[in-house]
Amino acid sequence: MSTGKLILLRHGQSKWNESNQFTGWVDVDLTEKGEGEAKRGGQLLAEEGLLPNVVYTSLLRRAIRTANIALNAADRHWIPVVRDWRLNERHYGALQGLNKAETKDKYGEEQFMQWRRSYGTPPPELEDGSEYSQAGDPRYAQLETVPRTECLKDVVERLVPYFEEEILPRVKNGENVLVAAHGNSLRALVKHLDNISDEDIAALNIPTGIPLVYEINADGAVANPGGTYLDPEAAAAGAAAVAAQGGK
Amino acid sequence: MSTGKLILLRHGQSKWNESNQFTGWVDVDLTEKGEGEAKRGGQLLAEEGLLPNVVYTSLLRRAIRTANIALNAADRHWIPVVRDWRLNERHYGALQGLNKAETKDKYGEEQFMQWRRSYGTPPPELEDGSEYSQAGDPRYAQLETVPRTECLKDVVERLVPYFEEEILPRVKNGENVLVAAHGNSLRALVKHLDNISDEDIAALNIPTGIPLVYEINADGAVANPGGTYLDPEAAAAGAAAVAAQGGK
Repeated sequence: MSTGKLILLRHGQSKWNESNQFTGWVDVDLTEKGEGEAKRGGQLLAEEGLLPNVVYTSLLRRAIRTANIALNAADRHWIPVVRDWRLNERHYGALQGLNKAETKDKYGEEQFMQWRRSYGTPPPELEDGSEYSQAGDPRYAQLETVPRTECLKDVVERLVPYFEEEILPRVKNGENVLVAAHGNSLRALVKHLDNISDEDIAALNIPTGIPLVYEINADGAVANPGGTYLDPEAAAAGAAAVAAQGGK
Repeated sequence: MSTGKLILLRHGQSKWNESNQFTGWVDVDLTEKGEGEAKRGGQLLAEEGLLPNVVYTSLLRRAIRTANIALNAADRHWIPVVRDWRLNERHYGALQGLNKAETKDKYGEEQFMQWRRSYGTPPPELEDGSEYSQAGDPRYAQLETVPRTECLKDVVERLVPYFEEEILPRVKNGENVLVAAHGNSLRALVKHLDNISDEDIAALNIPTGIPLVYEINADGAVANPGGTYLDPEAAAAGAAAVAAQGGK
């Protein structure tokens, strides 16, 4: 049995990435640039012969469309699909919809960075009546309570058990599993895979549209700690761009 | 429990629909017009408030992309997805890749219509070495034998048991199920749903991109025999266009 591959793919640029707004669970679409990033991600998979057997996505359009476009480019559009809210982006609470630069100006660098990168402190809750709330969204109807805000710790707590129950067994079994998700849900997963501390995870940024591959043995151990980006140069530039958000 | 709806959607125009070639299991993409038809199909669903809870597709790109585009337009991109080869188009055997008008000229009207519309006579088998064969395609690796040709009867025999086991129970349970598939796999399904004879099915044509809705009771009975097209006028024009294929 060959080693299974876990392939993480952060969605391409979204309309609110472009306009520098906190997005969270708001279901914004990709930009044309984001569609191009998704296609390039799929081409990288095809060039490497790294062909997924199954794809997992969040319930958000930008991840779903990234998966669709990438798989179409890799000629793997026909593989089984699983969608789950536990792969969703971190819910950004009352920050959803706000411009990042304006928020930084208004609340100061320290508060801004705490909201963005603190492990255990969530932003203020989003009111159910807000236009950016998911309180009445039918895709979350099965949840007991729809989140009103989340910190990264909350994401780890909803995502890691799902990963261990649903995704990891397939990778351990030698399958190649593509996970198309989000900056913070993938940070939560990488924190778990690489056993990164609550402090150090603050400095980790994941670029859009570049497959990040973990080789996982049958016992569940990661064979290549830190993972391997299929285009390391572009990945480094992309991660630096994420770190610089909040600027104008 | 409300009545479940079975929503049939034939993929939008493909590149080989446009070039008038027999397609079958060859995995051609949509044209731009076909993408527009898929989007319109999704808009019709949204306008009618006919929102699918789950989507079934074939393993072919033109149906998969039609479903993706339609669901995105209907804001239902996040619903569960099931793909199965048994929803594939009829395998067109040695005709795959041939131009329909040229085939009609070469073999004559009678042979041409027998291949297209006879219930029990398949076209000649496609050789495994053909560029249009699916013999080595990884998506069919789990099949004991990959078809080399099929008549509509073969499609009924692979599709109806799958429909009854996997799809019908969900509709009977009150769910709205979208099936994104193909001219002949949907003809096979409609033959079953409306109990159409082997002879009469020859005259039935299904237009591209227009949702055809069957209301199905909890006991599995069709409440609206013949189904209901969401845009009946466009559907009639589309069906006439399908019937006219083979012309130049």
